[in-house]
Amino acid sequence: MYHSDNLDKLVESLARFPGIGKKTAQRLAWHLLGQDKSFAFELSETIKTTVEAFKPCSLCLMIAESDPCPICSSIERNRDLLCIVEHSADIQIIENMNEYHGLYFVLGHLLSPIDGFGPNEINSESLKARISELKPQEIILALKPSSEGEATIHFIWEILRDSGIRITRLSTGLPFGGDLEYSSSNTLRSAWTRRFSV
Amino acid sequence: MYHSDNLDKLVESLARFPGIGKKTAQRLAWHLLGQDKSFAFELSETIKTTVEAFKPCSLCLMIAESDPCPICSSIERNRDLLCIVEHSADIQIIENMNEYHGLYFVLGHLLSPIDGFGPNEINSESLKARISELKPQEIILALKPSSEGEATIHFIWEILRDSGIRITRLSTGLPFGGDLEYSSSNTLRSAWTRRFSV
Repeated sequence: MYHSDNLDKLVESLARFPGIGKKTAQRLAWHLLGQDKSFAFELSETIKTTVEAFKPCSLCLMIAESDPCPICSSIERNRDLLCIVEHSADIQIIENMNEYHGLYFVLGHLLSPIDGFGPNEINSESLKARISELKPQEIILALKPSSEGEATIHFIWEILRDSGIRITRLSTGLPFGGDLEYSSSNTLRSAWTRRFSV
Repeated sequence: MYHSDNLDKLVESLARFPGIGKKTAQRLAWHLLGQDKSFAFELSETIKTTVEAFKPCSLCLMIAESDPCPICSSIERNRDLLCIVEHSADIQIIENMNEYHGLYFVLGHLLSPIDGFGPNEINSESLKARISELKPQEIILALKPSSEGEATIHFIWEILRDSGIRITRLSTGLPFGGDLEYSSSNTLRSAWTRRFSV
């Protein structure tokens, strides 16, 4: 039976992506081997260069090429609005909507104590410090409508309930359990427009 | 709006994989950026190392780490049997079945003149030379049952019809239009066992 340690390692690496199973990883690996080698070398180099260039912004924790990130350091953003997201990737989706011009904060994870993600794991101290510093008028919780999302929304609401800050969440027009990054721009826009106070 | 040339380039590179659309590529890119960086660096290095290590075998044209490849140079393989496949990846699928112990030949593409893949593009001269050298008793055409597959089977049959070599093809138990590499081992085993003369 044909066997290659190098190929196995490549397949295993590719299968570590979320949503990529072993069969898909094998197909991707053979595609890399079977194509013009320049594609594979370029991809290898692009991954290295890009990952080296990105690190978390010290203000909003978004992964970006500069610190502070282009959004935190922009003078054109509305500093009275703070949008809280789970992942840096969610920021790109919201920016693509072209509707929001405030600041962001990245939790990195939703609250899920059973999986080991408590208040310390979702950057809640950094969030509190950032809110104290910015004193925004409104905080928009752009979190996924799932049990972890609801728990996180409740947790943040508890922290801020007496602060006088308006706390809103996206309309639950989003399908329950769906990842923010998979929603269409139209769905997200409708949920954004219909956001309501917690 | 947030924009990064580096990130765009990474997304574009990832979207060049077959079956990976722009949204999936964006998700993979953010996963690379958001994870422990060691994953991304390891993937980058593994792609480079693996692709550097592989090149086509001069006998069967399979992409492998040695030339001749481990299969062509093995003394344990049955040299009376030659299996013709479209891609190198198909060989791994057939090997995983653990049923066939002959040699292989990789066409690289199916015959599809309308897309610019004529006899020269499917390595037919190398195939003829390899067949003259090996003089196999049976040639198994393990090609996908599609119009291109049928055209290729017919083309090879025309070349070999007077050679006295038994020419077989996989049972069309495989779903029409399906890629060989997506079939389950059981489906492939059944098609293999029921292969019939062209």
